[in-house]
Amino acid sequence: MDKKHPKEYMVQMSQIVMPADTNHFGNLSGGKLMHWIDICGAQTAMLYSAENVVTASIDRVTFDKPIKSGQITTLTGIVTWVGKTSMEVKIDVSVKDYRTGKIETTNSAYIVFVAVDENLSPLAVPSMILDGENEKEFNEGVKRREQRIKLRNAK
Amino acid sequence: MDKKHPKEYMVQMSQIVMPADTNHFGNLSGGKLMHWIDICGAQTAMLYSAENVVTASIDRVTFDKPIKSGQITTLTGIVTWVGKTSMEVKIDVSVKDYRTGKIETTNSAYIVFVAVDENLSPLAVPSMILDGENEKEFNEGVKRREQRIKLRNAK
Amino acid sequence: MDKKHPKEYMVQMSQIVMPADTNHFGNLSGGKLMHWIDICGAQTAMLYSAENVVTASIDRVTFDKPIKSGQITTLTGIVTWVGKTSMEVKIDVSVKDYRTGKIETTNSAYIVFVAVDENLSPLAVPSMILDGENEKEFNEGVKRREQRIKLRNAK
Amino acid sequence: MDKKHPKEYMVQMSQIVMPADTNHFGNLSGGKLMHWIDICGAQTAMLYSAENVVTASIDRVTFDKPIKSGQITTLTGIVTWVGKTSMEVKIDVSVKDYRTGKIETTNSAYIVFVAVDENLSPLAVPSMILDGENEKEFNEGVKRREQRIKLRNAK
Amino acid sequence: MDKKHPKEYMVQMSQIVMPADTNHFGNLSGGKLMHWIDICGAQTAMLYSAENVVTASIDRVTFDKPIKSGQITTLTGIVTWVGKTSMEVKIDVSVKDYRTGKIETTNSAYIVFVAVDENLSPLAVPSMILDGENEKEFNEGVKRREQRIKLRNAK
Amino acid sequence: MDKKHPKEYMVQMSQIVMPADTNHFGNLSGGKLMHWIDICGAQTAMLYSAENVVTASIDRVTFDKPIKSGQITTLTGIVTWVGKTSMEVKIDVSVKDYRTGKIETTNSAYIVFVAVDENLSPLAVPSMILDGENEKEFNEGVKRREQRIKLRNAK
Repeated sequence: MDKKHPKEYMVQMSQIVMPADTNHFGNLSGGKLMHWIDICGAQTAMLYSAENVVTASIDRVTFDKPIKSGQITTLTGIVTWVGKTSMEVKIDVSVKDYRTGKIETTNSAYIVFVAVDENLSPLAVPSMILDGENEKEFNEGVKRREQRIKLRNAK
Repeated sequence: MDKKHPKEYMVQMSQIVMPADTNHFGNLSGGKLMHWIDICGAQTAMLYSAENVVTASIDRVTFDKPIKSGQITTLTGIVTWVGKTSMEVKIDVSVKDYRTGKIETTNSAYIVFVAVDENLSPLAVPSMILDGENEKEFNEGVKRREQRIKLRNAK
Repeated sequence: MDKKHPKEYMVQMSQIVMPADTNHFGNLSGGKLMHWIDICGAQTAMLYSAENVVTASIDRVTFDKPIKSGQITTLTGIVTWVGKTSMEVKIDVSVKDYRTGKIETTNSAYIVFVAVDENLSPLAVPSMILDGENEKEFNEGVKRREQRIKLRNAK
Repeated sequence: MDKKHPKEYMVQMSQIVMPADTNHFGNLSGGKLMHWIDICGAQTAMLYSAENVVTASIDRVTFDKPIKSGQITTLTGIVTWVGKTSMEVKIDVSVKDYRTGKIETTNSAYIVFVAVDENLSPLAVPSMILDGENEKEFNEGVKRREQRIKLRNAK
Repeated sequence: MDKKHPKEYMVQMSQIVMPADTNHFGNLSGGKLMHWIDICGAQTAMLYSAENVVTASIDRVTFDKPIKSGQITTLTGIVTWVGKTSMEVKIDVSVKDYRTGKIETTNSAYIVFVAVDENLSPLAVPSMILDGENEKEFNEGVKRREQRIKLRNAK
Repeated sequence: MDKKHPKEYMVQMSQIVMPADTNHFGNLSGGKLMHWIDICGAQTAMLYSAENVVTASIDRVTFDKPIKSGQITTLTGIVTWVGKTSMEVKIDVSVKDYRTGKIETTNSAYIVFVAVDENLSPLAVPSMILDGENEKEFNEGVKRREQRIKLRNAK
């Protein structure tokens, strides 16, 4: 399997927050945003691996700023680390104030997906081409991976 | 108001077709795709005009190929023509076969939006910077505009 | 196959605009209305052809008046032209002011559907019985059909 | 307030059962059908009373036949009895087999709505014009009303 | 088949009323509540019978108090009567005022479900263990059952 | 403000996985489950604090087993730690096999909510009554809290 460069498999998913996406404060509900993060991440992992994927885990996500109804919210996904059958995807969530053009990152999340066949058995995924752009993130991904194993074993 | 270049206000909206988006053939329903086209276009027009917008009209859309459940569908919006208060946005819809990486354009649509204030009164929008990239499309936009006026008057 | 009269296969679909159908102005979103138009049209074409159908194209739709949350919106579909395997359906959208009883047509749309079998292969559809009521609309349908072919070839 | 004839305020709401409306048998879920019945009834009561309405009660509904994904389901609402501020609406649910044209009534339901102002206080509704067509149903409505009062007092 | 005690198969389903669940008054729509009642009841009947189920009928439901957006609504289901293949489930709907802790029952409903196999053919369900707690409700269930048969035959 | 015991403010939210909740494998999508986790947690925090709440963060969640369409999924929320204005809620997700009665925990998640007034300004929350049942979990909550602060500062 040929190595791949994640920047060729980035996914962008822009949404207007509609009333159906809000809580009773009129802000995007945290749960709906998590839903979008998962959908954006799954696309990124599918395109990189050229396979179907299932969500394995999602790291801690923080919600610092409310996102209001009518605001334009953009999710961007990129693969940041790969193992044998699993891929870590980073999702950056930003809100673009259409009046000022100002972009503000509101959340980011790391999700791990596993490439699977139709019986949900894991499949090998391509290794990453590393260069100046993504090497640092990959090395931190190795640490996040170790941290996840530690957390799992601690249970 | 400063002129603007549409390529700085493009919007990309990538979606996985989920069972909830399908008709009983298991394909993306035409109506759901129209819904996505409108949402993608509205974001594009909001970012370009720096105002809220309402949909004024959508030109003829054709549906040549079914899009299946589980496929990755990407909508891309760009402003192609502007009047005093209205903007024409072109939406290209493509399906990316995640197994082969092959991208296929399935539909494209021209939608006209009007910039509005809170009382839905029209607001002026910035003129377009024209260059080799977008001048041809703009001139065809002028013709599409004339065609729309003719169609309206013919009623 | 016996000829059929479209007025025996009309479909009416009345909806209250609910908050989940609105944009952040509290009006029915253009995309949701397009979704309803497609669903109403598909039913009309299924009943006329006695087959399953897929959406082939939708002609230009204009949105002249906002439809507010809580308003009663009625879509009416009727077949206006038929070819060998395709049918043109006209959808009229009206809002009925329940306080005054006044009905206002807000949009109309022509959608073309193709009758298909389970493999999505086209199937023949019944010819139309033409009379004083629908002959004029049918003849205009022939012209709309020619216009569509011209538009397609021009691409 | 002038008397009104219910047949001028009938509402028809035709739907295709989509995968998003189904349970895991692939049939229309009973809950979704109840949802549609309420929406169809509310429209009927709004048009008759020329006021906003709230649902007061729904009588027993039976589900005798499964409705499958892809089937065309039509709800028809008509006012069958009126009191000072409340209206009884009968909803007939039928499935039209688009292949054979055969229509089968699958359910019917009586729902009571109350006309209300913005503070949800009850408002008077017009009396019914009774004739050969609707008098029998009205008289049975009087009995259903008495039965409801008896059921309520028995609690 | 061993007898079972319904209290071991109770289901609780707590929901926050979100804008997407409301009518244009900002209150939970009657239809959405009916939808939830059906879902809660189906779970209760599945757990008691250890089989899949379909909804057979729902008795009269009254809506006495509006439930507002943002309120916490709890549905509780318990089997109250069983026949050979059918089960009556009682659903109590209550709103918990999170500020005062006060719980108020807003609705209750009796739904009948039938246990079915994959072809929707009825399956036997376990008899109920009766004791001081549920015997009175069961005996009233017998009467409700007779009343339903009478209503059905009267049609 | 009086101290409170979390077990009096537990929330249970049982759901049947419907086709509309699934991905194209026919399993509950990870994003939809995250959505439910947030809704269940928000209710728990509202009831404990007697205030409105906003989601502040969600700790790492793992998805070990697919949950299939038609399965009964139960989320249970309990407050496990409180600060001045924030509360940590633990959500346990389990699937109950209705055929065997076997319950299997599939996921658990810690979410932090902040009590807020209408302007989204933080409000004080009641301290927890600690006893043998919840003291261990609370002390681990203190550590999770420290870990979160460390993670945030490391950014």
